[in-house]
Amino acid sequence: MAERLVVIGGDAGGMTAATNARRLCADLEIVAFEKGTRVSFSACGIPYLVSGEVEPLDALVSRTQREFRDADRIDVRIQHEVLAIDADRRQVEVRDHGHGRTFRIGFDHLVIGTGARPTRPDLPGIDSEAVLGVQNLDDAAALLAYAEQSRCQQVVVVGGGYIGLEMAEAFVMWGAKVTLVDASPHVMRTLDPDMAALVAAALDRHSIEVRSGLAITGFEPGAVHTADGPIPADLVVLGMGVTPNSQLAEAAGLELGQRGAIRVDRRQETSVEGIWAAGDCAESFHLVSGRHVHVALGTVANRQGRVAGINIGGGYATFPGVVGSAMTKVCSTEVARTGLTETEAARDGFRAVAGRIESTTRAGYYPGAAPIAVKVVAEKGTGRLLGGQIVGGEGSAKRIDVLATALTAGMTVDEMINLDLAYAPPYSPVWDPVVTAARVAARAVDAR
Amino acid sequence: MAERLVVIGGDAGGMTAATNARRLCADLEIVAFEKGTRVSFSACGIPYLVSGEVEPLDALVSRTQREFRDADRIDVRIQHEVLAIDADRRQVEVRDHGHGRTFRIGFDHLVIGTGARPTRPDLPGIDSEAVLGVQNLDDAAALLAYAEQSRCQQVVVVGGGYIGLEMAEAFVMWGAKVTLVDASPHVMRTLDPDMAALVAAALDRHSIEVRSGLAITGFEPGAVHTADGPIPADLVVLGMGVTPNSQLAEAAGLELGQRGAIRVDRRQETSVEGIWAAGDCAESFHLVSGRHVHVALGTVANRQGRVAGINIGGGYATFPGVVGSAMTKVCSTEVARTGLTETEAARDGFRAVAGRIESTTRAGYYPGAAPIAVKVVAEKGTGRLLGGQIVGGEGSAKRIDVLATALTAGMTVDEMINLDLAYAPPYSPVWDPVVTAARVAARAVDAR
Repeated sequence: MAERLVVIGGDAGGMTAATNARRLCADLEIVAFEKGTRVSFSACGIPYLVSGEVEPLDALVSRTQREFRDADRIDVRIQHEVLAIDADRRQVEVRDHGHGRTFRIGFDHLVIGTGARPTRPDLPGIDSEAVLGVQNLDDAAALLAYAEQSRCQQVVVVGGGYIGLEMAEAFVMWGAKVTLVDASPHVMRTLDPDMAALVAAALDRHSIEVRSGLAITGFEPGAVHTADGPIPADLVVLGMGVTPNSQLAEAAGLELGQRGAIRVDRRQETSVEGIWAAGDCAESFHLVSGRHVHVALGTVANRQGRVAGINIGGGYATFPGVVGSAMTKVCSTEVARTGLTETEAARDGFRAVAGRIESTTRAGYYPGAAPIAVKVVAEKGTGRLLGGQIVGGEGSAKRIDVLATALTAGMTVDEMINLDLAYAPPYSPVWDPVVTAARVAARAVDAR
Repeated sequence: MAERLVVIGGDAGGMTAATNARRLCADLEIVAFEKGTRVSFSACGIPYLVSGEVEPLDALVSRTQREFRDADRIDVRIQHEVLAIDADRRQVEVRDHGHGRTFRIGFDHLVIGTGARPTRPDLPGIDSEAVLGVQNLDDAAALLAYAEQSRCQQVVVVGGGYIGLEMAEAFVMWGAKVTLVDASPHVMRTLDPDMAALVAAALDRHSIEVRSGLAITGFEPGAVHTADGPIPADLVVLGMGVTPNSQLAEAAGLELGQRGAIRVDRRQETSVEGIWAAGDCAESFHLVSGRHVHVALGTVANRQGRVAGINIGGGYATFPGVVGSAMTKVCSTEVARTGLTETEAARDGFRAVAGRIESTTRAGYYPGAAPIAVKVVAEKGTGRLLGGQIVGGEGSAKRIDVLATALTAGMTVDEMINLDLAYAPPYSPVWDPVVTAARVAARAVDAR
């Protein structure tokens, strides 16, 4: 009899595992349970739905239930919520919300791809219908419907990270006045303060009011309460990060790790054999810091899912870890980071130095050349590259990939100076800004 | 008494050496001789001058004679042509064209930065004033003046490499009908035929007529003669590559290498102690093929000049070599390559396989997502990355830098699959196209 793979969660982690397992193993039975109504969507695209740049909602669905069935013989069942994992009996208990029934189904392999949920602070008024987090397309539909119905004019975004910035930009484009409230001393605390200041300036240019270092104390209809008085708000969007959905795993006795994410080995297998995890619910390993981390990003989910699927399908693949790359934009300003910031490097025990430069995205004389600031962090003594940050105009952010690749390869900043990066006046100054920053960092490494 | 550094040639190689030597050595006397009228210009910007995107001509001058003097105490003398190098006496013989006199001057260190000249085929009519190569700003001024005066309507560009493509695009924007004639079987012979075909299609979309595999037999006023009959031409632009200006070096007894370029060691020193070379006149080492090569690019000139200058100034730096990165655009189509093509890999004795994919530059649902084709070449067996090629819309070409960095680091395509490249919908699909191509190449490596 064919083995059965059960997948919990119909998004990137789970479904990528399912399709990769199918590719290697034609006779596996594959069943995926999704508690929502849509599978395989791009949550990262939600801000662009709000801004109006992307429509309709289903444009964000990369593959439908039917496509999975027809192309890969994967039986995807929506509105099916897995209530429990029975690791001993190798079964899951499933609630079919569509038909109001509960059943149990056995598995040989189980992939947990339950994702994460927006962090909701335990504050008065948090359960108001005007306080919304956005993690899936159903949330996005609810957010858009609420914004339209209430004709909201004043939006408060809580949290100055990637999601916060993207939702702030989105609601500016939507037509609202936006205030970004962040308890941290500066927005984008995944950047060093000097680079984050450039992002704050960009927010200011785009008329997004930033209230940093301000704690929220509660919510009520029409206002957000803070230590500094109320801020009017028709709508509050939460961008305070996410919490891994690991309750099922925990209840089943699986080992958890950082921030409650499910611990996995290099093959994405959990502490219980034959049970795998991938995506926002699972932990990762940080290749630079050497620490376990929780990174909730679609790219990581896809890579983890691929690795889990290959191993389930009888192949061999490992996910060595992340270097902490991420990027976003605020209107015309692009922001990217990888590795460790100076702050993070110090926290992790490195003695770090940095090189920071300002240059242009194109040859200075070429039309459209925009400012770009690049900061490169390196280890004192060895010169090992530890990380980098970029803030600049069009064509800036994707340059972070050079640093991400160099980090993965364990290069020193000295080795980076002679990197043979491509050049043409419409795309770069003759000295690539990333290389220039590495050169300045190399001098700091050598300085007495 | 202070030592004297003499520099021959006032462009990237020589002047970068001069400024780096100055930075490390305050009491060096530095004299630079430039036979033309301008120093430190971006030859790479000339096509954009012709197209009208950049003006005036002097926008391409990155630093003037005066700036070198005032900021770095470098005595730059224009219209001074070095006629001979006397390696034994440590002197150069210089013709001051401005004052019609010749003199000799001694040196402790000499940097040869004489650049390269457009290759001119030995064909009837090649000396016509309507047949122009473009290597410096004086050439560019002459070309623009000729084009304006003759109100040229039909331009033939000879050569389908980077310069050829850029000049073809430039003259289309200038308002002429352009025919690109290339003796090779396909344009962009630095790409594999399958990728070059995408470039040919782009030229076609932009109404540039391409005549590949066609040898030119001569020039006369109003026409270019070919094996296939005459092609009308008010103006002929040569884009057949360049020849290193190494005559002075050769006459002085210095060792030459590939294509007559000056042989240098890792510190950019020639075969004669204290005589250094940098830029388009000097040879490079190819880190992937392990061969000596001649690469005439501004990026290489700057890196070589930096290394020469640091060593002259008493520091220590090496230029390990190039991986063969280059990029350009033809209107809205971007083209880039690095490492070895499949064809080159086979020629160099590698058993190579390739992965080629088509994807989009942004998330498929995000406005402005354009097609991108990526080809990754790897060594059979080891999986070592050997090279890559990219052709696509806006945001495509600079992605080649990931491959250039991975090549330098000696990564395998398997290692590249989990590269933590940055993602956001406006900049990339969730699976980065470069990584996807590496993944397909990795399968080809593993295939029986």
